[in-house]
Amino acid sequence: MPTQTLISLDAMGGDHGPPVVVGGIKDYRTRHGGEAVTFLLHGDEAAIQAELIRLRIPDGVCQIRHTDKKIASDEKPAQAMRRGKGSSLWNAIEAAKTGEAGAVVSAGNTGALMAISKLILRMSAPGLERPAIVASWPTLRGVTAVLDVGANIESDAAQLVEFAIMGEAFHAAVHGVAQPSIGILNVGSEDIKGHEEVREAHRILRQNDLNLNYHGFVEGDDIAKGTVDVVVTDGFTGNIALKTAEGVARFISALLKEALTSGIQAKVGALIALPALKTMRQRIDPSAINGGPLLGLNGIVVKSHGGADAKGFGNAIRIAVDLARSDYLTKVGANLERLGAVLEAVPSTAEETVS
Amino acid sequence: MPTQTLISLDAMGGDHGPPVVVGGIKDYRTRHGGEAVTFLLHGDEAAIQAELIRLRIPDGVCQIRHTDKKIASDEKPAQAMRRGKGSSLWNAIEAAKTGEAGAVVSAGNTGALMAISKLILRMSAPGLERPAIVASWPTLRGVTAVLDVGANIESDAAQLVEFAIMGEAFHAAVHGVAQPSIGILNVGSEDIKGHEEVREAHRILRQNDLNLNYHGFVEGDDIAKGTVDVVVTDGFTGNIALKTAEGVARFISALLKEALTSGIQAKVGALIALPALKTMRQRIDPSAINGGPLLGLNGIVVKSHGGADAKGFGNAIRIAVDLARSDYLTKVGANLERLGAVLEAVPSTAEETVS
Repeated sequence: MPTQTLISLDAMGGDHGPPVVVGGIKDYRTRHGGEAVTFLLHGDEAAIQAELIRLRIPDGVCQIRHTDKKIASDEKPAQAMRRGKGSSLWNAIEAAKTGEAGAVVSAGNTGALMAISKLILRMSAPGLERPAIVASWPTLRGVTAVLDVGANIESDAAQLVEFAIMGEAFHAAVHGVAQPSIGILNVGSEDIKGHEEVREAHRILRQNDLNLNYHGFVEGDDIAKGTVDVVVTDGFTGNIALKTAEGVARFISALLKEALTSGIQAKVGALIALPALKTMRQRIDPSAINGGPLLGLNGIVVKSHGGADAKGFGNAIRIAVDLARSDYLTKVGANLERLGAVLEAVPSTAEETVS
Repeated sequence: MPTQTLISLDAMGGDHGPPVVVGGIKDYRTRHGGEAVTFLLHGDEAAIQAELIRLRIPDGVCQIRHTDKKIASDEKPAQAMRRGKGSSLWNAIEAAKTGEAGAVVSAGNTGALMAISKLILRMSAPGLERPAIVASWPTLRGVTAVLDVGANIESDAAQLVEFAIMGEAFHAAVHGVAQPSIGILNVGSEDIKGHEEVREAHRILRQNDLNLNYHGFVEGDDIAKGTVDVVVTDGFTGNIALKTAEGVARFISALLKEALTSGIQAKVGALIALPALKTMRQRIDPSAINGGPLLGLNGIVVKSHGGADAKGFGNAIRIAVDLARSDYLTKVGANLERLGAVLEAVPSTAEETVS
């Protein structure tokens, strides 16, 4: 029997609010059991209560902390920090700070969630300005974690190594892989390829004082191949790679749809092949990979997509529970400490360390 | 009747050599007419002659310049520059330098092609260290030119603007669009997004002293949407975006193939829908978009993929002919001169120019 885990939820975040958040709880319990997991829901009590009744969530699974205040989806991070105190998002994070909850899930405004998480929980990784966001990327071999996909625009070598440490611990906790393999995203696999920051991070990881399963450089097409479990990159490149991939996937889906509805014969063929096509669709279902943790904080915060459905929110809850029940935070802490020692042992400027 | 155009071909480059190069000539003539286009083929005379006979290329279309020497596909650029003189690749480029040929096509080793092109033809864009490579990207609205996809790892604002100038002239020449729209790849569309280099390039292009049709920032998913005709990015990000997209396309193709062969019923459906699926396949056929020009040189050099087939090589020839017959080089020259004046008029360091 697992120990009791309390997950703090921003019930008002995202495009749909309580129906999807409570729907996510129901989905999580249906598909993942959810023994010994309880929830603390922050937001409009009446609206939440109505959903708990409608979806027949048993008594004792959820507690509600009422607040009228919520952060708008278009609110700027600076404004959200100034006036966000007491909002459902703020209170959800506070519950993780006090130790009451083991993790937080919110489908709210990403900028506000990052800023307020950082303000309340503080960064645990010394090199990071902002939490790193992880994307779970479906591949031929399963799922690869790609980070950072958006928060840290320019990342030096130490930050890239921090991403490796955090991504490795995340992947181990959520996918149960003992020694996840790690690659740094680059334009080629030789040591001399790429810019200074990736070559320096490559050098640090290859030394292997951090005891990580480092594979080496990987290229863009290695992501979908599943060559490694964790792909490390700066937030600029990672964000562009992720959105480019989403664009390509939508482009091909549109072509496929167009092709399979292009005439009577095509429609008949598509109808017959439908069950197989549906199975294929599940492999790239966004709900199945929803839930991007913000890594590098003293606490576990998982961002659900603003437009996610109940199944998607349920998956974000699963990730939060897996992280909260794992040794993720202590493992990352120990490895970041080790990294500090490694960085002190090497010359401080990039020019000195690369010949 | 168009004026006579001579295209210089490295007949020994790529995985296949003369069969694909001469096959490309045949394909080009079959599908694009090729009136008043003749070819200068550099390489093994006997092997080339045999292909000309086998594929029944009429007399007078091709001249052969024999050489025994060729550059290996794994030769390093520095080595290729030292010992490449007299090779098929070298001689093909020399013919463009002397003005004998209007453009060069090679499927040889990219690094060697770039290094030797730069050595012989020299760069015309002052800010570029290496030629920029353009990828033609199939989109929902046609084809978008993305550059740089590999040569210039770190690009400052002036380089990014040079890419915009060259990409615009390329797209106009090859796709016949009068004022191609241009976007800079970034992680969001607001002016404050991204790092210094993209924001500075954005500012220069927005001023519009260059008379380009500048759209603004675009995100990764805008590429496949076809939001703009030309997407500008540094070679690191562009290479990763391109290879990530190739990986995703292969991943989805693999899933589709798996789904449509997963059982009798799926196979029957696929068979009925086959003509429609084939039409779809043509939309994303790599041969149809093969041929990446190296931009920024005093001359026109088009790189064909090493593994391209005759149809792909034929498309690379088409791009070379379109560029050679257009005002591409004079237009780029005039715009680069205008850029020089724009850059002189603004403070020289990034820190001073952005508030």
